[in-house]
Amino acid sequence: MTRPQHAIIFAAQNASQRMADRHTPFVMNDWYVAAFDEEIKEQLLARTLLGRRLVFYRTTAGQVVALEDRCPHRSMPLSAGTLEQDTIVCGYHGLRFNTEGDCIEVPSQDTCPKNVGIRAYRTVERGAVVWIWMGEAEQADLSKLPPQDWMEEAHWERSQGYLSLQANYVRLHENLLDLTHLSFLHAKSFGTPDYAKAAFESEIGDGQFALLRNVVPTTLPPVWAIPTGLTGPGQAARIVRSAFRSLGLHEVSVTFYDCHLPENERPQYRIRTAHMPTPETATSTHYFIVHGRDFAQDDPATTRFMHDQLFVAFQEDVDGLALQELALASTPPEDLYEFSVAADAPAIAMRRYVLARQQNESQP
Amino acid sequence: MTRPQHAIIFAAQNASQRMADRHTPFVMNDWYVAAFDEEIKEQLLARTLLGRRLVFYRTTAGQVVALEDRCPHRSMPLSAGTLEQDTIVCGYHGLRFNTEGDCIEVPSQDTCPKNVGIRAYRTVERGAVVWIWMGEAEQADLSKLPPQDWMEEAHWERSQGYLSLQANYVRLHENLLDLTHLSFLHAKSFGTPDYAKAAFESEIGDGQFALLRNVVPTTLPPVWAIPTGLTGPGQAARIVRSAFRSLGLHEVSVTFYDCHLPENERPQYRIRTAHMPTPETATSTHYFIVHGRDFAQDDPATTRFMHDQLFVAFQEDVDGLALQELALASTPPEDLYEFSVAADAPAIAMRRYVLARQQNESQP
Amino acid sequence: MTRPQHAIIFAAQNASQRMADRHTPFVMNDWYVAAFDEEIKEQLLARTLLGRRLVFYRTTAGQVVALEDRCPHRSMPLSAGTLEQDTIVCGYHGLRFNTEGDCIEVPSQDTCPKNVGIRAYRTVERGAVVWIWMGEAEQADLSKLPPQDWMEEAHWERSQGYLSLQANYVRLHENLLDLTHLSFLHAKSFGTPDYAKAAFESEIGDGQFALLRNVVPTTLPPVWAIPTGLTGPGQAARIVRSAFRSLGLHEVSVTFYDCHLPENERPQYRIRTAHMPTPETATSTHYFIVHGRDFAQDDPATTRFMHDQLFVAFQEDVDGLALQELALASTPPEDLYEFSVAADAPAIAMRRYVLARQQNESQP
Repeated sequence: MTRPQHAIIFAAQNASQRMADRHTPFVMNDWYVAAFDEEIKEQLLARTLLGRRLVFYRTTAGQVVALEDRCPHRSMPLSAGTLEQDTIVCGYHGLRFNTEGDCIEVPSQDTCPKNVGIRAYRTVERGAVVWIWMGEAEQADLSKLPPQDWMEEAHWERSQGYLSLQANYVRLHENLLDLTHLSFLHAKSFGTPDYAKAAFESEIGDGQFALLRNVVPTTLPPVWAIPTGLTGPGQAARIVRSAFRSLGLHEVSVTFYDCHLPENERPQYRIRTAHMPTPETATSTHYFIVHGRDFAQDDPATTRFMHDQLFVAFQEDVDGLALQELALASTPPEDLYEFSVAADAPAIAMRRYVLARQQNESQP
Repeated sequence: MTRPQHAIIFAAQNASQRMADRHTPFVMNDWYVAAFDEEIKEQLLARTLLGRRLVFYRTTAGQVVALEDRCPHRSMPLSAGTLEQDTIVCGYHGLRFNTEGDCIEVPSQDTCPKNVGIRAYRTVERGAVVWIWMGEAEQADLSKLPPQDWMEEAHWERSQGYLSLQANYVRLHENLLDLTHLSFLHAKSFGTPDYAKAAFESEIGDGQFALLRNVVPTTLPPVWAIPTGLTGPGQAARIVRSAFRSLGLHEVSVTFYDCHLPENERPQYRIRTAHMPTPETATSTHYFIVHGRDFAQDDPATTRFMHDQLFVAFQEDVDGLALQELALASTPPEDLYEFSVAADAPAIAMRRYVLARQQNESQP
Repeated sequence: MTRPQHAIIFAAQNASQRMADRHTPFVMNDWYVAAFDEEIKEQLLARTLLGRRLVFYRTTAGQVVALEDRCPHRSMPLSAGTLEQDTIVCGYHGLRFNTEGDCIEVPSQDTCPKNVGIRAYRTVERGAVVWIWMGEAEQADLSKLPPQDWMEEAHWERSQGYLSLQANYVRLHENLLDLTHLSFLHAKSFGTPDYAKAAFESEIGDGQFALLRNVVPTTLPPVWAIPTGLTGPGQAARIVRSAFRSLGLHEVSVTFYDCHLPENERPQYRIRTAHMPTPETATSTHYFIVHGRDFAQDDPATTRFMHDQLFVAFQEDVDGLALQELALASTPPEDLYEFSVAADAPAIAMRRYVLARQQNESQP
């Protein structure tokens, strides 16, 4: 058989064109994670988000400031300047900008011209992360920021980390909305063989996509078995909900329990993972991760153990998606096509949604 | 004088447009060397040939398998997966492919979709190398594989090596069909001053191009003088035939003898070199080389000595062609022109043939 | 306020389009510094100027030769060949070229074809540098080479240096015609806070642009205070003239004196700096510098001290302009605009002049 007929390839290519991919412009009117809270201090931090070079700092009053990282006079990155009393002084000619991006001083002349300003971005801090609205600041809509209560509540024990992904962010969302890859890409970390074949349900709504997979009974991998004590073969239930919440957030919620105990006697162990991809360029992504659990609180050794084990698995995604990106980039367009299988339904719906979002946004 | 008149440059540019160069698409319907036989084992090997990413492995029965290195589901390189019982299991979602490129298992569902396959390539092993037909497997034509008896016969003592050439393969063929460069590019290795001016004949046929050059008498460079014992000044005859045999093979045959001995009393020492360029990209080439001799058999020290000396010279070609490629790439198109001289006739005919092959192939 | 209105950005973008920048093709018909005199010896030197690969050498009689660095036969860089009796022998097939770029020998044949030549460039040595006319050699016009008497006169004590600038040469000229940046980009080297606000005059003529700035009284930075002895606070006058002399030369002249002494009793200390940018590519520049002073002659320690201090400052320009180039390159065109302020007038006039020069040159 080998390669499919042209008509079949053509149909697959057409189907892909209705889904977002690395050729899709970014969706600006939404919230993305700009940084971990602790990264933004009273000093200048340069970071590229959605293809735009930004500079961040924190005012003496603790407010996060996010500005375009380019002096509108002669294009020097402002992040190469200095922070003085909550304002940035450009390192080239000393033009000064306030927290709103207004130019308020041109040292070589007595009067400061009007209308020489740069884009300022709206930010909001929630728990350990700083969110940024990448569209016009006036249109920033807090109601579109998905609630993340567990990321702020005291009874969740949390850890966090950052990975640099050399792939488009849509492919990371696709990866997260597909649990069948756990048995293969994560065979050596938190995937188990029964995962790929377990029954699943999907929820496909308007901008909300979720996958529910109950693996019962199952044998837990060490990352979960050891902290929960559910170490026996076939002892555990693993109840998973993996949900695309917004362009900047995918949340995974898992409940473990001993499936041999009666329902009213079994303790439940819950974990949450916030996967927060922020596009850097069309083929690179800032990957912020916050992980939490509601058991074994105040146990730093367990926190460290779980964090380390989880990041081995997340690194597998990062490595795999970079290889995928490489293959996508080096395949001639006429040879490039992708078939989908039944388990891809939620991811396909999500990718169509992302494309529609971008297309709506680009309407005049 | 300096730079020629526009009309002359224009004529040179026109002439070049009738010859293949790095802008010419690859000729797919032919045999190229994919690898040395010993490189392909029961494990996955990724290699890009003619701009296509391929994955190779050997079955438990010893058959060489060559497949497209991209899962048609979500574009993961199959070479990042695992080899299981002569099939490849994709490292992302576990799709399984047989030696023909057919997808035979999708773990997340009970039935495997039809028509999800990848391109499989026809290969054939000859002596120390594995040849691959880069066009459609059904059209693979063994009659187009040039015979290479000496590469398999026991009385030829052989060695082999690989060089990575950062230049287009056509320029390597051009280099090989031109012996006048030996006196200059190889002045310190196997070239001698008399080489450039020695009389030559050329054979220009349909897809067969050869250069015959008899340098008699001559003083051999050490690489030949020492193994043959023809170390005296002006003692040797050096009878060379350098032939373009196919897009994937250029064969050099040389006979040495003592030109002071009568014809019927002089021993002949014969060597053969198979130069086998396989395009990787438009500006990089896999350069496989097999060298053989029919004298001093079973003499590993001589094999090692000749191999090392020869590869010094072949590396000179590789270095020189990379510089040429760099100059070609960095010269503005309007400034780029190349004049030809009489000795270029075989190479020009070859380059026209390669272009015609490509143009025929691209006809609908 | 943040980002300005579209109409204002549009106007700024339009204004920039009337100024030369990295998108402007090079002006060929002018003199540029090719090398320091001492760099060109009786050996081959490859260097790319204005996007063209050149090879330089010095004849046995001491003449500087500048040729196209590409054999017109098969594009081997001639700089990879050998220099033999004032001629270049190509390292590939031995074609020989004389100092005029004429091919005078093709070893593989008895007769040398006519009209196989390469471009030869007109050069002239002045003081420590070799100037090259990048247009047609016949049109080289020595009257367009700005006089640089102090670079040759004995009573000026000189030092010289080279910096590799990863930015377009126009931006270096812009930097040099703007002294307001000294207080910021050079705050830690030779800039002082009063510099940015000091009154200035500008001279804007036909291809001559200069900025005059008298900072009186001022406190000199160590680079000037120590050699002149004007170390007191507010003791010195700093009289600066910074002049665009040609596409290849910007000259800075400074006079220092003790502003507390009567006019007829105060010694004057004069320095000169020749900033000589030669485009390499659209975004990289050879930056040749000669510095001179007319005091403390025959004092190598002072020469070394001033040279080292100055090159710290010049490196600040190089670092800053590379950051500017990076920001220019990575800003989407629709987001890219630059406003100008009053102090930019001379640089704007210069950039308009450079664009006009290029446009005139490209007229048929």
